[in-house]
Amino acid sequence: MTEFELIRRFFASQPIRRSDVTVGIGDDAAVLRPPAGQELAVTTDILVEGAHFLPGADPAALGHKALAVNLSDLAAMGAEPAWFLLNLTLPEADEAWLKGFCEGLYALARQYDMQLVGGNTARGPRAIAIEAQGFVPAGRALLRSGARPGDGVYVTGRLGDAGLALLHRLGKHGLSESELAAVVARLDRPAPRVREGVALRGVATSAIDVSDGLIADLGHILEASGVGARIELEKIPVSSVYRAQLGEVGWDVALANGEDYELCFTVPEKNRAALEALAPRWDCGISRIGEIVAEPGLRVRDAAGRPYTPRAHGHNHFAE
Amino acid sequence: MTEFELIRRFFASQPIRRSDVTVGIGDDAAVLRPPAGQELAVTTDILVEGAHFLPGADPAALGHKALAVNLSDLAAMGAEPAWFLLNLTLPEADEAWLKGFCEGLYALARQYDMQLVGGNTARGPRAIAIEAQGFVPAGRALLRSGARPGDGVYVTGRLGDAGLALLHRLGKHGLSESELAAVVARLDRPAPRVREGVALRGVATSAIDVSDGLIADLGHILEASGVGARIELEKIPVSSVYRAQLGEVGWDVALANGEDYELCFTVPEKNRAALEALAPRWDCGISRIGEIVAEPGLRVRDAAGRPYTPRAHGHNHFAE
Repeated sequence: MTEFELIRRFFASQPIRRSDVTVGIGDDAAVLRPPAGQELAVTTDILVEGAHFLPGADPAALGHKALAVNLSDLAAMGAEPAWFLLNLTLPEADEAWLKGFCEGLYALARQYDMQLVGGNTARGPRAIAIEAQGFVPAGRALLRSGARPGDGVYVTGRLGDAGLALLHRLGKHGLSESELAAVVARLDRPAPRVREGVALRGVATSAIDVSDGLIADLGHILEASGVGARIELEKIPVSSVYRAQLGEVGWDVALANGEDYELCFTVPEKNRAALEALAPRWDCGISRIGEIVAEPGLRVRDAAGRPYTPRAHGHNHFAE
Repeated sequence: MTEFELIRRFFASQPIRRSDVTVGIGDDAAVLRPPAGQELAVTTDILVEGAHFLPGADPAALGHKALAVNLSDLAAMGAEPAWFLLNLTLPEADEAWLKGFCEGLYALARQYDMQLVGGNTARGPRAIAIEAQGFVPAGRALLRSGARPGDGVYVTGRLGDAGLALLHRLGKHGLSESELAAVVARLDRPAPRVREGVALRGVATSAIDVSDGLIADLGHILEASGVGARIELEKIPVSSVYRAQLGEVGWDVALANGEDYELCFTVPEKNRAALEALAPRWDCGISRIGEIVAEPGLRVRDAAGRPYTPRAHGHNHFAE
């Protein structure tokens, strides 16, 4: 199979067709029509074998996750997903792998009406880079820089299950079969909070997605906003599986392991009622975990009011 | 150095500032304002060590080339460059390498007023993926599909020098020091034909950039347009260095080696005067190498009128 046949078979025939795509795959560049009055939100993320996933990982899960991590970034801006591009390097043109990968990729793309409009394949170590674009009404993007003292700090869903599943997979913490089954989808097939992010426009003052761990990601909001925060350990939302492991793994996995792809956001008191009207419609739920304060720095307190210092501080690919 | 410090030092401080960037590097996604009435041209290309460049390659040349190959795709659409994103995987956070890479990257970005608006770094085998965006007035993009019988077939600049330099570097063909000096920049620092592509809007009926070799790339125009072409070998523009090697390497390097990053385009007779008014302003020059015919297929004839069959057929990463 030649490179061109490979591309044609698996990618040119991608199943989603949007009316705002003038030229899709098959020319030197895609030609796209952004809607009037909207700004463009643009992000990119890469998954590299060995760094972000283990050799032998399920290709369908990789297809899902490679797109999901980008959707999660768009969600954190309050943007509606539209188009994406794919760079794929593979050690060989493996048909079964490509078939699985495309199944996972397109199932998620269909869910958000996202069209693949370009990309590239090359021979090399297995790596998947996706670049995703979405729309947000001009001036309404959710930034990291808008948190103000008095705002509540919230997260969607539950934190730590992806980290637990990863510890199990790396042989660092044992889960029973049923426990693993309950958390592994959070690692392999994260659900980006796209509808939640869009609904938070005009309600939240800042937002970020939790990809590097709550401590690190909330830290980015605090730094960008020039504020601090107090959060309460016991209010961190964790699953019943996670709670049962607390004695062994403590709170660090939920606070600093990352890969949760939940949203962390801040809401001022005046918008609290609006948020509380929205949240019951969301399957993932929300939790108020603390509040923004003027004094810089993040303070985490346990149930007894004692300061809690996490051991880990989020993901860092180049840490020495 | 942590990943975040690395990013901050080399990429967050990128030197180009455009007024249509609402949010650049440093949030979950960039927020950008496409101009009214324009369509967006979007492309991506990847360079992988071992597949696209040799270990030890000059980082400044890689920075230039990684952006240049994407600019070349925008040029082939007649689009004006605006924004780009970068995914960089590196075996280590090597400061000297990053410094050189950014020098080459930003020098070319500055030349075209392109702003880096996002990206990602990860540890992995050395690979550079860039995604570039530009604007083209609605309905005026240069496509591959517009060639019609009777159109002239043209290329900008000269073909084959990049291929010669590559053969030399791979030890497959010897060049003298002065010969190598005359051609090596065509391989390492290709000049994308951006201004030429923009000027060809409304003049050319189709365009493509010559990245995989003239035979392969003109073949894409013929296929997309449902036409054929006759081209004359002696009209293929080559440098004096290339002409001196013809006895040894023949025409195949110029026809099928790729990496020239010239434009191949078609112009109808009615626009020939407009083209001939434009071309003298272009340093690279243009050559009319043949014409489009109704009968499918590409026929290449030598000076004696005999059919010429190239041995190679362009670049193919996954050929068996």
